[in-house]
Order: sequence, then C-alpha cells, then structure tokens
Amino acid sequence: MATVEPIEWTASGVVMLDQRLLPGEVTYYTYTDYREVAGAIRDMVIRGAPAIGVAAAMGVALGAERSAAHSTEELGAEIPVIVETLAKTRPTAVDLFWALDRMRRRFDALVAETEGIKEPERIDRIRRGLVEEAQTVHRERREADQAIGALGAALLPQRGRVMTQCNAGALATGGIGTALGVIRVAARQRQLEVLVPETRPYLQGARLTAWELQQEGIPLTLITDNMVGHFLKTGNVGAVVVGADRIAANGDTANKIGTYQIAVLAREHGVPFFVAAPISTIDLTIPSGEKIPIEQRSAEEVTHIRGVRIAPDVPAAHPAFDVTPHELIAAIVTERGVARAPYEESLRQLAGTASGQSS
Amino acid sequence: MATVEPIEWTASGVVMLDQRLLPGEVTYYTYTDYREVAGAIRDMVIRGAPAIGVAAAMGVALGAERSAAHSTEELGAEIPVIVETLAKTRPTAVDLFWALDRMRRRFDALVAETEGIKEPERIDRIRRGLVEEAQTVHRERREADQAIGALGAALLPQRGRVMTQCNAGALATGGIGTALGVIRVAARQRQLEVLVPETRPYLQGARLTAWELQQEGIPLTLITDNMVGHFLKTGNVGAVVVGADRIAANGDTANKIGTYQIAVLAREHGVPFFVAAPISTIDLTIPSGEKIPIEQRSAEEVTHIRGVRIAPDVPAAHPAFDVTPHELIAAIVTERGVARAPYEESLRQLAGTASGQSS
Repeated sequence: MATVEPIEWTASGVVMLDQRLLPGEVTYYTYTDYREVAGAIRDMVIRGAPAIGVAAAMGVALGAERSAAHSTEELGAEIPVIVETLAKTRPTAVDLFWALDRMRRRFDALVAETEGIKEPERIDRIRRGLVEEAQTVHRERREADQAIGALGAALLPQRGRVMTQCNAGALATGGIGTALGVIRVAARQRQLEVLVPETRPYLQGARLTAWELQQEGIPLTLITDNMVGHFLKTGNVGAVVVGADRIAANGDTANKIGTYQIAVLAREHGVPFFVAAPISTIDLTIPSGEKIPIEQRSAEEVTHIRGVRIAPDVPAAHPAFDVTPHELIAAIVTERGVARAPYEESLRQLAGTASGQSS
Repeated sequence: MATVEPIEWTASGVVMLDQRLLPGEVTYYTYTDYREVAGAIRDMVIRGAPAIGVAAAMGVALGAERSAAHSTEELGAEIPVIVETLAKTRPTAVDLFWALDRMRRRFDALVAETEGIKEPERIDRIRRGLVEEAQTVHRERREADQAIGALGAALLPQRGRVMTQCNAGALATGGIGTALGVIRVAARQRQLEVLVPETRPYLQGARLTAWELQQEGIPLTLITDNMVGHFLKTGNVGAVVVGADRIAANGDTANKIGTYQIAVLAREHGVPFFVAAPISTIDLTIPSGEKIPIEQRSAEEVTHIRGVRIAPDVPAAHPAFDVTPHELIAAIVTERGVARAPYEESLRQLAGTASGQSS
C-alpha cells in the first residue's frame, strides 16, 4: 500500500532511497557493506525510528551475508562488531536497539538450531536465517503499520483538519507509516485535510510528508512551525497525530523536536493529541522521559538550510528530539491496541505480550 | 546608540538598507520617488512596525519635496494620492497608518500656518515643514526606543537567558529597537544570553536579530521555531520580550507569526511574557485582537527559503502575523510607562496623553 519504499532487501544488497534529496531528487543507493548501512543511518539517508530499525536489521543481515567468515565461530566473532557499529549511529530511536537485539538473539538461536551441522552448510544456514529475519522485521513493520492505521483512523475526526509533525510516513517506516498511516486509512474513508508543519531544521514535513501526501492525493496545507498555535486556534483542527522515536514506560514520548510544543498547544485548544508507534518503540526499561537520551546534532543544520547559509556565524543549538509528557497524550496507538492513561499499566499490558520485546 | 541604521533621510533622498539581503550582503538604496518607498515597504526592504512608520513619514515628505506642484493647491491634490499609495503596502502595522495620518495632519496645519504667504515661498515652506516632520518622527522613534529600553530592562531577570522573536531591533525601528532595545540596555548592565528563534518564513531572527546581537557582542543562541517549548522547559529562560505590530485597546497584540504560541508556551512554564512597543503601535480604535487585520503573504515564502525550493508544489499558508491575547501578556512596555492589566485602563491612560495619537 505504500507509495514509496525507503528501503528494500534485494539480491544485490540493501537498496535505500536518499531522503535527504527529496523531494527534488529521487536517488537510490545499493549498499553491499554493513558499514555503508551504518553511515546511511547516521547521515540520515534513511530516518524515522521504525525504518531505522528495519535498516539496522538489514545491516546485520548484510554484514553476515557478506562476511568473509568460513565458520560459525568466525561469524560469531564478527556479529558483535557489526552490531556495535550499527548501534553507534543514532542514540534516540529505540527501534534501532530493539532491531539489533532481535538480530543478535536470532543469531544465537540459529547457532543453537544448527548445532551439529557441518560447515560451510552451517554458516550458510545461519546467513540465510539472518536475511530471513531482517525480511521478517520489514514485513512485520508493514503489518504493524496497517494495524496502527486501522486503529488510529477510528480516533480521528469525521471531517475537517488533522495536524501531524515531521514525517511518520512510509518513508519513516517502510510500511504505510505510523502517524501518516493513520491519516492514510482515515483519508480513504472520508474527507480530511492535513496541516503539515515544515519541521525545521531538516524540513521532514515540507520535504517528505508534503511529498507523500501529494503522491497519494490527500489534501494538505504546508505551514511553518511557528504557525502551529495560530492554526490550532483558528484553523478547525480536530486532532493531532504524530509518531515516536521512543516511548518510556510511563508514556512520556520522545519525538522530533517541536512535538512537545505542539502537544502543549493542542491541549490549550482542546485538540486531542495522539501518538502512533509500533510496540518496538516502547522502552519499558526507561521509567520516564527524563531518562531518554536526546541526540544533539550539528548546529550547522540550524544556521544553514539545504546548504544555504541563513544566519551569521553565531552559536546555534540543535537538540534533534524533545520529550512530550504523558499527561499531554490522549492515546498511544500501537499495532496491538490503543493505550490510554494510566500508561504504566496499558503500555505494560500491550508491550509485555510482545514476542520482540526484550524487557 | 544603534549599530545599524535601516533608514535615513539625506539630501539625496531616502536611504534604506535592504534587510532582505542581510546578513550576507549590506546594500543601501537611495530612493527619490515616494512610489519607490512604497515598494520598499511592500517588498520588505524595510520591515518592523516602527521602522515602517518612519519610512511612511519619509515617503510623504519625499513625495511632497519631489512633487512637480507649483502651488499649495496643486500639492494639496497630490498629498492624498501619496498617502493612499503608501497606505496600501502593509495592512497590519498600525504605525504605518499612524505616521501617514500624522503627516497629513501636519500638512493641513502647515497650510493653515502659511495662509497669506505667496507662492512659491508658501509651498517651499510646506515642503520643508513636511521634511522636518518626518525627521521628527524618526528622532522621536529613537527617543522612544531609549525610554522603552530603560523601562523594560528593569523587568528582565538579573541573569540567565531571555528569549525574543522575529526582529524588534534597530533594523525594525530606526532606534535601538523595542524588544531588542530592552535587551540591549539590560545586557549593558548584566550578563544575559539571548535565545533567538529563527522566525520562519522570513528568518528575521536568524538573519537580523542574530546579526544585530553579534554586532553588539551580546551572547546569543540561535534556535529553530519548534525548539521554543523545549528551551522554555529546559533552558533556564527568565523572560520573553517581543515587539508588536498593533496593540488593540484591550491589550491583545498582533505581532509576527509565532508570537502567539511563544506566549502560550511561556505561560505554561511560568516565564513572564513582555511586549515592548511605542505608543504609536497602540490602536485604541480597535477594541480587541479579532478586529486586527492579518496580512496573508505569498505561499511561496513558505515553500521556498532564500529562493531555494524546499517543498513539492503543494498548497501552503502564510499568515504573516498572529494575535496574542492580553491574558498572556505580563506587561506592555511603552516610552511613556509600563502598562499592566487591566489594559483597557492602563493603555488608555498612556495612549490617551499622546500628542501623536489621533483617537
């Protein structure tokens, strides 16, 4: 159902769409080395917590597939290096660590399952098993998005406008998107217009969300980030729905910088604020938002836009994410159900049943 | 005291700094036709409500000075055309209309004062009188900024950070600035750091405020507009001070888009929100904010940054201003004193004593 595929496992390697160049250029790369996949995550060729998870899983599979190891033992020595390299790319998106953990555990299981099988058949089986696991992560992501979309669409208003933030779309997940998946499903059923804040400094709203919605023919209006309050006050907005990079056990949600203030402004105007995210985004090991690590990115991303200098040479800050306290969140929509306050209980119930959740 | 002069009356004409090109280029134009001045206001060569007022006054003076009229009667027929042309440039900044009204009334007074004097001496005297009046508007603006700066500085915290929005600086007024005037005076007395939201779509924060502060050596950190909530929550901000484009009788304040949401977020975090503006910005003829006309500017200013396309060809909205309700404003600092709630009374008291206020 997705109109765009940000990442795909192919026989030639991991194919990725360079999201930094959108919407002006549609460029795909084929990576044959896991270090290239790590670089792509770090440099934001691919972004969006769920898609980063898929990329990390494929990175491990690629590393195993292309490794020069001749035995399971040799491969077993490489896996931690591969995982470590991929782990050091982005600190906030928990899906990254979830996917790496899942691949490492799958490797351990494959080693156990293949005990007694001779090399090189054993290592070949393990390699195939890891590739299948990465593809399963991707397929599950697509299915999760569909489920999130159906559950979330029921929460959106019957008409009028909805607002999102950043890009929690197909580009961010590899499926139909989380927040944009909800909007896609709702827009198939009824007339909705989407208000899209541009989301500086990376302009994921202007470049990616506007583009995705345009591809699907869903009506939208692009606004700058400082118009959010004005449009919540005057613009007939019935709901806000955003994605998440990490959700703490109490429901506090880290997401793209700017999400927090949208949540405050939504409450000020009585507009419900929803988070849409896969179970893998929930981190039950972190009790509350203060403990979520916030990535600080380069100040140059603030003083420049698309490579053009827009400010004199002055200090600039660039926290890439902020934390929205659970009190501001009307519901968290996952593929297993809709969590509501008190989130300690509802999230534990949903995430605790997770096959993929390690806690 | 101003480090930069956005506008100056000279023997050769009205000299203006092109603020659209800052901080990359420092380019001055000399206008010899009032229609050029009108174009410069409309196209934002000059911006900022107080500076627009100065430009409008100089525009009328220039129109009179360079008119081909040979008699007071002929000039009297031209003045309404000149005023009308200048009035049609920007709808929100009340200083524009205040300055045009003042110049028209000065013209009427000069006509009365010169009754009985022969032409062309009469028309020459009237021309000189209008030029003097425009220069007086500019001088009063500088004096008002100094008074606002001194009164406002007393309200800022003794240390830490203050936040502003857009550019209410020397570039916006022709003096030391209103909000930035307050910050300038305070920064001379104590250690303060300024948080500067970039203020999309025109980037007056990134381009103009950052530049002005850098010129003066006042420490600053540039942020994007969607970081405001995050820094009010975590960034040790003791006060917010902004300018105004029009203040209604009840204290509701129209200012650059984004101001409203900063005010909501400031209250959420217990940070006082101050407006600094000259008396001429107060419009007692407008009872409340809903009646203030909001300029809608080109959507292209949202889909492009500095001429570079950043979004696909999608609809975009561009309200240039928003309205901050008086309940969110801790005080309004004018050159005649600090107004506090209830603003109906305090503003009427301050503005009612105005020699320049027409209501």
